[in-house]
Amino acid sequence: MMKVTVWNENRHEQKNPIVRDIYPEGIHGAIASFLKDGHDVTTATLDQPEHGLTDEVLDETEVLLWWGHMAHEEVDDAIVEKVKQRVLDGMGLIVLHSAHFSKIFKTLMGTTCDLKWREADEKERLWVIEPSHPIMEGVDQYIELEKEEMYGEHFDIPTPDELIMLSWFEGGEVFRSACTYRRGQGKVFYFRPGHETYPTYHNEEIQLVIKNAVHWATPTTRTKPVYGNAQPLEQISDK
Amino acid sequence: MMKVTVWNENRHEQKNPIVRDIYPEGIHGAIASFLKDGHDVTTATLDQPEHGLTDEVLDETEVLLWWGHMAHEEVDDAIVEKVKQRVLDGMGLIVLHSAHFSKIFKTLMGTTCDLKWREADEKERLWVIEPSHPIMEGVDQYIELEKEEMYGEHFDIPTPDELIMLSWFEGGEVFRSACTYRRGQGKVFYFRPGHETYPTYHNEEIQLVIKNAVHWATPTTRTKPVYGNAQPLEQISDK
Amino acid sequence: MMKVTVWNENRHEQKNPIVRDIYPEGIHGAIASFLKDGHDVTTATLDQPEHGLTDEVLDETEVLLWWGHMAHEEVDDAIVEKVKQRVLDGMGLIVLHSAHFSKIFKTLMGTTCDLKWREADEKERLWVIEPSHPIMEGVDQYIELEKEEMYGEHFDIPTPDELIMLSWFEGGEVFRSACTYRRGQGKVFYFRPGHETYPTYHNEEIQLVIKNAVHWATPTTRTKPVYGNAQPLEQISDK
Amino acid sequence: MMKVTVWNENRHEQKNPIVRDIYPEGIHGAIASFLKDGHDVTTATLDQPEHGLTDEVLDETEVLLWWGHMAHEEVDDAIVEKVKQRVLDGMGLIVLHSAHFSKIFKTLMGTTCDLKWREADEKERLWVIEPSHPIMEGVDQYIELEKEEMYGEHFDIPTPDELIMLSWFEGGEVFRSACTYRRGQGKVFYFRPGHETYPTYHNEEIQLVIKNAVHWATPTTRTKPVYGNAQPLEQISDK
Repeated sequence: MMKVTVWNENRHEQKNPIVRDIYPEGIHGAIASFLKDGHDVTTATLDQPEHGLTDEVLDETEVLLWWGHMAHEEVDDAIVEKVKQRVLDGMGLIVLHSAHFSKIFKTLMGTTCDLKWREADEKERLWVIEPSHPIMEGVDQYIELEKEEMYGEHFDIPTPDELIMLSWFEGGEVFRSACTYRRGQGKVFYFRPGHETYPTYHNEEIQLVIKNAVHWATPTTRTKPVYGNAQPLEQISDK
Repeated sequence: MMKVTVWNENRHEQKNPIVRDIYPEGIHGAIASFLKDGHDVTTATLDQPEHGLTDEVLDETEVLLWWGHMAHEEVDDAIVEKVKQRVLDGMGLIVLHSAHFSKIFKTLMGTTCDLKWREADEKERLWVIEPSHPIMEGVDQYIELEKEEMYGEHFDIPTPDELIMLSWFEGGEVFRSACTYRRGQGKVFYFRPGHETYPTYHNEEIQLVIKNAVHWATPTTRTKPVYGNAQPLEQISDK
Repeated sequence: MMKVTVWNENRHEQKNPIVRDIYPEGIHGAIASFLKDGHDVTTATLDQPEHGLTDEVLDETEVLLWWGHMAHEEVDDAIVEKVKQRVLDGMGLIVLHSAHFSKIFKTLMGTTCDLKWREADEKERLWVIEPSHPIMEGVDQYIELEKEEMYGEHFDIPTPDELIMLSWFEGGEVFRSACTYRRGQGKVFYFRPGHETYPTYHNEEIQLVIKNAVHWATPTTRTKPVYGNAQPLEQISDK
Repeated sequence: MMKVTVWNENRHEQKNPIVRDIYPEGIHGAIASFLKDGHDVTTATLDQPEHGLTDEVLDETEVLLWWGHMAHEEVDDAIVEKVKQRVLDGMGLIVLHSAHFSKIFKTLMGTTCDLKWREADEKERLWVIEPSHPIMEGVDQYIELEKEEMYGEHFDIPTPDELIMLSWFEGGEVFRSACTYRRGQGKVFYFRPGHETYPTYHNEEIQLVIKNAVHWATPTTRTKPVYGNAQPLEQISDK
């Protein structure tokens, strides 16, 4: 039972009836609804004060999910810095789909996070590369999505600590679509599927991966490292 | 034969006679002098216009070395951004000692890069972990430095792509002292030794590691990835 | 609550009164005793029929711990092969101390697993490198052992998937003392401390790491990959 | 200029006129011919005495390439052990296509190296994942092969040290088709393409990757680690 916050830009939902149709409660509402059995879930969106990520919310959040696409630049730098600090202090972070271009993900990665893309109603098949990974619990050999937006290599990310799934796209590309990273004491999971005009987050297999990821990303009971000037633990000879 | 730029803060040299004594030409001068046989070496310092990192210099530089300590915050953010772009585009970067806290290293890593430290004239022994790595060519089983500043774990960095050397310190700590990372098309090497009040860069074994690293970090002849909207390479069925 | 088997060579206990004194129930008995609260623990030793690793025992075992030192070559190759198969099929394996030279560990690694060593009653300090790793739950910044056998780099292992702890030794060496690997669907954890003439397995901090590791190494509910000749999932054009 | 040995099973060439037609000099002859400009190339085949891998040949070989498919079990265990020793001592090894099931590769990996496969004249597209890797020098964004044998995930290998290329297959699968590993002081490169009934080794882009790999896998001038009982480098206190 964890405190989970689902952050969503929530702009497409305002502008595009197709998206509103698929996600009447917003992408954040859809994701929150399949996480609420088992977790204490809060949602937050771009247009809320402080983007809904007040100190109160962030200090309580154990795992933060992030979906954004058309307004990354509107996320306040000071809020990004707070989120980054919380991740380095142990908060889990799950970065979804177009959030590869979010300020928080690019800041934690140090690269452009650029890629190829195409909106063409094409089939995606996500193959499992690490079947024994906790995030893959209960997941079949592959997940097939009838229609998704293509993301293709080269994906400008640092080498993932763990590569969990690889995607095949009908149009000929491949993509490292499920990757984990440690940053400070926090665990970061990037998960590709989730273009706003497809009902991807209603797909139960996709939901399972995200549920497993929330569990995986939860902070452990850990000893915070101590930094700075340190007294010697052994005698140092005169020289 | 590569175009190499050695960047040094060059402030300790101004303030501390001990440092001036050890490095009369500055740390940058000392490093440039053992690299110049074989490379076209330029130096650059904090107090030069644009910190000596003009577009002209950066566009020509194949490998950049960086030493800084007491004035990281004075490095102009716009220059840091240019250096970051050049690394992502392929320029090699060698980050030395206290430059673990440089803006450029922290930006490429996404973590605090914090650590434990102690100035106590203590012995450091750098053990070779990857003897067959190009950066370890000609390096013995370990390098012993009679006196260095201790850096100790926990070192808040992302998991290195490759861990090349591990340090033992007289006072009881250990440290991952030679690490490689890829960021975009650039290769990054962090190398710990080099406290300003010790003659570390005059040590021939340390010089050998740095020479090998310059060679390793050199950009290859590569195809720049193409990003953005991509035409399908295969037919996509109507759905 | 897992089915755990603790395998121990149990030869030092027969020959050396010092070892018998420290471990009256054998190393296997000592380890089983701190694991039994929470798990269904079986022990097995070299001199039992089939080394205690009958099909019945192995098929039930979810996590196997292995301690061996002076009789690795007496372990039956057919038993090693069965253990290897079980690991690749998902059984967790925790390899302790001198078992770096066990047939099962060398087979799973593909390298010599050689190292430097010294028996000199010297201090070991195991520093935590990954504080947020599940195996490090509740573990302090470092674990100090007053007396242990030194193991020093170069440790001839493949690059660990995860490096969790690094050891400092009084005599001047360092060692990668807690490492994880995936092999097939199984998770392997190598943990260095545990020389037979020291009460290391009575140390509560060491016990905590091993308990965490048993939990980490437990097989997940996973889909077994399917190999071999595969029907196409998409139409393949005539060429 | 390196001493390179190309080992090929050379059985398909005897039995299958299609293969003989494509590779009149055998797969080994074809590979040797594009490596000979720049290297001192020897070939060796299964049916030669000691499979052509005498001590004399092996001791001189700096990089060994291996192609096998239908007779892995006929490779003498003692020869496999010698090759393994040479790799651990620094000899480079390039494992091609169906040699994923060779004794030498499985021994160095410690896993089954199993996978999915299909012979259906299908298109393969190898995407570049690490454009700045030395093995990818001069390689375009992807290599397209009109017809190849499909290999699909799950590929039962340890996590590669470096993942260089990912394949897309017309029938719907993906595969980690260019991977590097360090084993001991040796460098190992697995490269997927090369089914015997297709002219893959006549493809200049495939040849370029293999040429780059030979260069990458060459042993460096390194200090051999010293193992075994070690004298302390520091004083150890009485306890």
